[in-house]
Amino acid sequence: MNENLSADRPSFVTHLECSMTGERYEADKLHGLSKVGRPLLVRYDLEAIGKAVSRDEIAARPTDLWRWRELLPVRHTKDIVSLGEIETPLVPIPASGGANVLVKDEGRLPTGSFKARGLVMAVSMAKELGVTKIAMPTNGNAGAALAAYASRCGIETIVLCPEDTPEINVREIALQGARVWRVNGLIDDCGAIVGKGAAEGRWFDFSTLKEPYRIEGKKTMGLELAAQFGWELPDAIFYPTGGGTGLIGMWKAFDELEKLGWIGSKRPRMYAVQASGCAPIVKAYDDGVEHADRWENSHTVAAGIRVPKAVGDFLILRAVRESGGKAIAVDDDAILKAVDDTARQDGLLLCPEGGATLAAYRAALADGLVSESETAVLFNCATGLKYPMPEATNWLDRHGEVDFDRL
Amino acid sequence: MNENLSADRPSFVTHLECSMTGERYEADKLHGLSKVGRPLLVRYDLEAIGKAVSRDEIAARPTDLWRWRELLPVRHTKDIVSLGEIETPLVPIPASGGANVLVKDEGRLPTGSFKARGLVMAVSMAKELGVTKIAMPTNGNAGAALAAYASRCGIETIVLCPEDTPEINVREIALQGARVWRVNGLIDDCGAIVGKGAAEGRWFDFSTLKEPYRIEGKKTMGLELAAQFGWELPDAIFYPTGGGTGLIGMWKAFDELEKLGWIGSKRPRMYAVQASGCAPIVKAYDDGVEHADRWENSHTVAAGIRVPKAVGDFLILRAVRESGGKAIAVDDDAILKAVDDTARQDGLLLCPEGGATLAAYRAALADGLVSESETAVLFNCATGLKYPMPEATNWLDRHGEVDFDRL
Repeated sequence: MNENLSADRPSFVTHLECSMTGERYEADKLHGLSKVGRPLLVRYDLEAIGKAVSRDEIAARPTDLWRWRELLPVRHTKDIVSLGEIETPLVPIPASGGANVLVKDEGRLPTGSFKARGLVMAVSMAKELGVTKIAMPTNGNAGAALAAYASRCGIETIVLCPEDTPEINVREIALQGARVWRVNGLIDDCGAIVGKGAAEGRWFDFSTLKEPYRIEGKKTMGLELAAQFGWELPDAIFYPTGGGTGLIGMWKAFDELEKLGWIGSKRPRMYAVQASGCAPIVKAYDDGVEHADRWENSHTVAAGIRVPKAVGDFLILRAVRESGGKAIAVDDDAILKAVDDTARQDGLLLCPEGGATLAAYRAALADGLVSESETAVLFNCATGLKYPMPEATNWLDRHGEVDFDRL
Repeated sequence: MNENLSADRPSFVTHLECSMTGERYEADKLHGLSKVGRPLLVRYDLEAIGKAVSRDEIAARPTDLWRWRELLPVRHTKDIVSLGEIETPLVPIPASGGANVLVKDEGRLPTGSFKARGLVMAVSMAKELGVTKIAMPTNGNAGAALAAYASRCGIETIVLCPEDTPEINVREIALQGARVWRVNGLIDDCGAIVGKGAAEGRWFDFSTLKEPYRIEGKKTMGLELAAQFGWELPDAIFYPTGGGTGLIGMWKAFDELEKLGWIGSKRPRMYAVQASGCAPIVKAYDDGVEHADRWENSHTVAAGIRVPKAVGDFLILRAVRESGGKAIAVDDDAILKAVDDTARQDGLLLCPEGGATLAAYRAALADGLVSESETAVLFNCATGLKYPMPEATNWLDRHGEVDFDRL
């Protein structure tokens, strides 16, 4: 029924290259990081894509992630492991944000978060390349997405998460067929164990940016924005930044779209949003350096962006700087207030990381970095339903006299 | 950006009529139940719709609920209170269901459930008709949707729910700006209090089918299915049935689409799915009667279909019988097993009510009511993330020697 999942469409991947050195790597083979320990980027024959398909043809296809097939790495339609990756809506938040503030509500994706974009691509490629066992560190949502897609196509998965990962995430991962372990540490501690096992050949390492295809999945956020805004990009993007795959991916998408001639040279200013309790990218940005030091004693209510050290730090910083944006840290009180305001005033329940983007937008507005007349997109990376909400208990006795004036 | 939310489009409502007697009621006025206490149905000038728009024009619009505008009651675009009502995807569940079984995943809608369809329409109409205060009984999800949409447009809301409504629902309702009360009783006990206050003129009663527009919103499930299946309907639909608004709405949609000439006369067999601990419609179906008695001592894990008495009982039963379908009860063990199987084998986390539809499909298959070669659609009415999941705790000490063979 959905032709995107049944039609044979050509793939245009030519090779992969090291994001640091530009060294070339062969396509259609399993890869982790490059020889210098940095992420690999997938490269396409953009000229051939431009001849094969137009942006209008893509716009006319069913509205899901797979309509971008020519710009994605999966070669064979049969290898697509789909759970219904719809295009996520842009929801205005006029009361809590402003007249030109739109939330890209990524909580509508499978497993309730934008991690589905990266993992649907990475798992489909793993299937295509014959992987049978995967391990991954996660703060919660990525593990849930991996478990869902991998179970769906029969790949065995082991997921390691920090000890204080919310119960709902751990249960969801297990229920969706992965083996999940709590580790007394943070996500990079989990990552170290995954890396050690991978080095011993026990499994394939699915850490953010350590395999090359999650970034291609996250890239679709940028492709969708271009289509949703009529092939003109918004003025500013506020993106909750942990590993930063999405920010890097969108920046790559805009570059590919411009080379295709589907958008012009206008770029949004990219604002990388972190929590003040874990802000390595903000510190590196402020210090004017290219790489970020590990952030010690990380803490924030926005667990999804509690990433002390990102392997793609230089790519995040490069995109932020090239765009004329900034890295911004916000504290937990501002995050929680933003979540509360948006729910109460606009009826939209953000996750804490989504709340962080509104808090950062408010700070940027106060600092004159953005104006109210500019169009700003905030990324709500997961459904707010996965996170704790304040207590609320009123009791009404139906057997007694109901005091209607009290209701 | 989304022309569905900005373009002026004509409305074709001619009047409302009593679903029991056919008595005519004026459009553009506030209505509750008809004089005989039954639901009102909205009627359109279908001939004029057919002249104003084609099914291909609708298919070419942005893919959300508002593309069906000519078949919906909202007259003024400015009254649309939208949170991004995307078309929900059809997700195959080959392992737990079968090769031709598709889940319509309604958990992707705003507030995570299909209640958003009914409430976005009812609230938009309430806004259009000048309502300022609404009360509603709910088992949880409807209250969350009402709170979100009403808060978004400044309508005051009071929500009453049974005492054992899950904490997550109560909190979500409160966080989204409604006043919420737990009542020591079931949903119809809550409904009695709401009705009493409405009779005293304290608020407008938003109970299922007691205002005429929720059914028009739920109707879009049928409209979407027609478009998604290329204007030919599936063979069977399994629908979790509490108040039954969605089943009644889909049946109405199919009728309108046929009159428009957009589909033929083929109808899916409609299977109304209930829990064996609360199965008034199943009993009435088996007894061959037109109305259902109140079900005493209701209990089931699928709280969303724990509705002891439905005001639209005769409409549900009529649609089920006309379609050649059946009302089917499934027990809690079968429901929980279906949820578990689908998560583990297909990576899709259903809500218990969604699990009930798979359990009913399996029973229907075993009884020869459906065959494996027929296309069946199961409605997953909410995201599984709103419901309890089994515990899952493994601990791994990163300071010690990791026993990789154990992972």
